Amino acid sequence: MGELRKDYILDKYVIIATERAKRPDEFKVEKKIEKNGMCHFCPGNEDQTPKEIERFPEESSNWQIRVFPNKYAAVKPEGKFEIRTDNSFYTFSDAFGYHEVIVETPNHDEVLADLSEERISNVLKMFKKRIAVNMNCQNIKYVSLFKNQGEKAGTSIQHTHCQLIAYNDVPEIILEKEKAVKKYPYCPYCAILNTEKNSFRRCFENNSFVAFTPYASRFPFEIWVLPKRHLLNITDFKEEEFVFLAEILKKILLKLKFLNADYNFYLQYGIENVHFHIEITPRLATWAGFELSTGTIINTMTPETAAEFYRS
Amino acid sequence: MGELRKDYILDKYVIIATERAKRPDEFKVEKKIEKNGMCHFCPGNEDQTPKEIERFPEESSNWQIRVFPNKYAAVKPEGKFEIRTDNSFYTFSDAFGYHEVIVETPNHDEVLADLSEERISNVLKMFKKRIAVNMNCQNIKYVSLFKNQGEKAGTSIQHTHCQLIAYNDVPEIILEKEKAVKKYPYCPYCAILNTEKNSFRRCFENNSFVAFTPYASRFPFEIWVLPKRHLLNITDFKEEEFVFLAEILKKILLKLKFLNADYNFYLQYGIENVHFHIEITPRLATWAGFELSTGTIINTMTPETAAEFYRS
Repeated sequence: MGELRKDYILDKYVIIATERAKRPDEFKVEKKIEKNGMCHFCPGNEDQTPKEIERFPEESSNWQIRVFPNKYAAVKPEGKFEIRTDNSFYTFSDAFGYHEVIVETPNHDEVLADLSEERISNVLKMFKKRIAVNMNCQNIKYVSLFKNQGEKAGTSIQHTHCQLIAYNDVPEIILEKEKAVKKYPYCPYCAILNTEKNSFRRCFENNSFVAFTPYASRFPFEIWVLPKRHLLNITDFKEEEFVFLAEILKKILLKLKFLNADYNFYLQYGIENVHFHIEITPRLATWAGFELSTGTIINTMTPETAAEFYRS
Repeated sequence: MGELRKDYILDKYVIIATERAKRPDEFKVEKKIEKNGMCHFCPGNEDQTPKEIERFPEESSNWQIRVFPNKYAAVKPEGKFEIRTDNSFYTFSDAFGYHEVIVETPNHDEVLADLSEERISNVLKMFKKRIAVNMNCQNIKYVSLFKNQGEKAGTSIQHTHCQLIAYNDVPEIILEKEKAVKKYPYCPYCAILNTEKNSFRRCFENNSFVAFTPYASRFPFEIWVLPKRHLLNITDFKEEEFVFLAEILKKILLKLKFLNADYNFYLQYGIENVHFHIEITPRLATWAGFELSTGTIINTMTPETAAEFYRS
């Protein structure tokens, strides 16, 4: 069983997921091995995944979206979820939680950018549903929903999918954001949104959302999407907001597809005050020793240039 | 000219280094182009680098170590170094500082692990010298010294080298560590060192240093090296401590060479209280959407297994 562990003195957590572990020798970098053609995420191979959680449309034999537990789960709903401390320096719990896979399309060769706005909007509604379900599970403190697209973004499985990890800790990044937000007498994200939509960093805008490249972008082509309404989570979206988000998301992802850029996207939502946002981070650069030693990131592209690219 | 920029509300800094910028189209991922055979870091090509800062042995035509400014510097000693704020959300300065390259050997095909302990110790002494010089430069708040070994660790140049970036900000990670250290009535790193050298995570030990895989390792095979004396910086090392550090570093790097593992290493040193340490982070895994959305890292290997590998 894996463990959740905290750094000795910092509020940095690590999940030690032994069930995904390789033996040391297996890390030895060798020439790439051609992958077996069989895809476990394709229709017809449903029996190769852990037991299905749900599908869309429900009970249809021609599913468009399919959700099941991750076979190589980083967290599992078993063991001791309480985070505790032995001597002064070892703070830990079992790696407790739920780890789900959301397959966005039955078609092996499609990527999310290829789907119609309607289908993307259905995927977003599935996010809402799975987040809501997992947030209500016992001993779950936060639900992370993210997509890893391509090898440089950390995925090993080609068939397009998202992942959800619900676990027993409120993430450091969310706590930091909550803390920072409290310093303002108003929602700083609302203010940022209003500032950036009149700046050179504005990329896309519709009735409900604004997309812009953030002022201190950490990655080339990093882009954020925020709802104009002060919403904490996707679970608070109105019907039409899924459609408007799908529209903007498709525009962004098509631009990244043009670049052949691997990317991550992930939801950032509040537990108290943080305004919901999606961060999309193409992985065209590598964080290296300087980033790891300082926390300061070197980005080789201005967000203003990136915004021009998105608008072009 | 580049800029140093802070996230809207978090104390996270980014250096926007426009002189390293590519045009958007150039990020398009294409098949690898064979690299030109000419290496600017090799003897005979000294005129291809910016003006030499120093070499070891001094004034020798057969240098073993050579230091010069980075041709594609992320920071430069020009512009406005003061960090200031426009409206509530844009905090910035010019990307001010010094960016140096330290070539560790004249031999193109050697890596740091191949050098004798004596030569590694000379490289470490060069670190000390360059850190001391840069710390005394005006408007410099911190000097980061790091190595990127291999493509996955963020380097594009094969000839083995380290880098130094001196800049106008105390890094977030160092501030966090300083803050965390202050919570203890004693040095927590001294206590950690004494705990870990009796644990399953101990890897190597000699008169002056202990190397262990940290309890909450963020990377497979992550390993830290700490001096037994409570030292804040490499600038405080005694002569013999360079030799003892070289001995342990060589052992670690030879293990990583066996794995063909790309890696970063970087010095972490205190501005007030943080006990000096070196963190060595092999890059055999990719931080993906979950890490970026939460700050929580998934590591697929226990540090106890990694320590066994180092000891074997």
